[in-house]
Amino acid sequence: MSKQVAVILSGCGVYDGSEIYETTLTLLRLDQLGIGYRCFAPDIAQHHVIDHRSGEVAEGEARNVLVESARLARGEISDLATLEAGEFDAVILPGGFGAAKNLSNFAEAGDDMAILEGLAEPLGEFYAARKPIGLMCIAPALVPRLLGPGIAVTVGHDPGVSGAISAMGGLHRSCGVEDIVVDFENRVVTTPAYMLATRISEAATGIFKLVDRIDELMDL
Amino acid sequence: MSKQVAVILSGCGVYDGSEIYETTLTLLRLDQLGIGYRCFAPDIAQHHVIDHRSGEVAEGEARNVLVESARLARGEISDLATLEAGEFDAVILPGGFGAAKNLSNFAEAGDDMAILEGLAEPLGEFYAARKPIGLMCIAPALVPRLLGPGIAVTVGHDPGVSGAISAMGGLHRSCGVEDIVVDFENRVVTTPAYMLATRISEAATGIFKLVDRIDELMDL
Repeated sequence: MSKQVAVILSGCGVYDGSEIYETTLTLLRLDQLGIGYRCFAPDIAQHHVIDHRSGEVAEGEARNVLVESARLARGEISDLATLEAGEFDAVILPGGFGAAKNLSNFAEAGDDMAILEGLAEPLGEFYAARKPIGLMCIAPALVPRLLGPGIAVTVGHDPGVSGAISAMGGLHRSCGVEDIVVDFENRVVTTPAYMLATRISEAATGIFKLVDRIDELMDL
Repeated sequence: MSKQVAVILSGCGVYDGSEIYETTLTLLRLDQLGIGYRCFAPDIAQHHVIDHRSGEVAEGEARNVLVESARLARGEISDLATLEAGEFDAVILPGGFGAAKNLSNFAEAGDDMAILEGLAEPLGEFYAARKPIGLMCIAPALVPRLLGPGIAVTVGHDPGVSGAISAMGGLHRSCGVEDIVVDFENRVVTTPAYMLATRISEAATGIFKLVDRIDELMDL
């Protein structure tokens, strides 16, 4: 039986959902390593819909996070409410604004943010069971509220986001786009991805390192 | 000045647009090779919207191909009407049902299909200029109508689609998921991708080979 990783999505598109390249590159690397995966997303309304061509809010449009996330999983997706930490060896959250708009309200509330209840519960179980947790792009900003204070993470070197992480009791470490930050004690791995990437190959390098390290931590 | 490749999208999601992994893996490989790219999509209504969770048509929903394709290009996309073959060294069409529903009506009309006029014109210019053309998944089914008869392509070994290709005057060659078919005379490269792939790493192997061969052909 191969290792199994849960991947938590938040829509389909960088500005209102999961970042598409980050998600695809995560799944590619897991599969290249022979690791099984299953995608999950919450069955909730998206915070809003962004027209990705104009960058503007698409007024009057409404989409569902689970239904849109299904695009990114070729239909093979489960409701986040059914995620059982006991069935998986690790969990990974790609980035994209969906992490800060649908899985939390960080985009609006900053260091006053709240985590989606349906996410906090299963992630707490992964953490309590000392199963590795990977987060990329903006998703590491959720860590202080999601898992607790004092856990080292990176979002690259954005002063606003790293300041908010610190304000919530987190530890932010600056990091290049092609590198990762590993908190061995807490088994949390993070990489800046599209917080910094200007090319998809840069994002891929950091994301592949993150997945490789999650793979190693599952053996420890 | 690096080589430049145009990538033509047809939405965002395998069942009503471009296949997301095929597109992402194409862009990754182009960037890894130091090749520049620009994404294009037609500014037209989608044939329909598929709920990718249920697989059913989302009745009453309407989306625009260019706007949805922008998700897959992180907003960096141009209207297909502005594509000038003279500005690019090659062109690639990822698959997904969007190629058979939005860029053509192959999904409904089979070998009676018509190609979207806004696609036929620029692709004809690439072909006439002997610039390499890559197509994957279901997109090679468009080749007989898009570029003309007698061009060797593959969609894997689907009897229905390969039969339709033959009926339109095309040449179909069977091919494994991790391989490509190259028509050197016509400078057309195809790979089955998700016509056959059961794992993302299989699709990646064939797609990387396709992009590598397009890269070589641009030098010839």
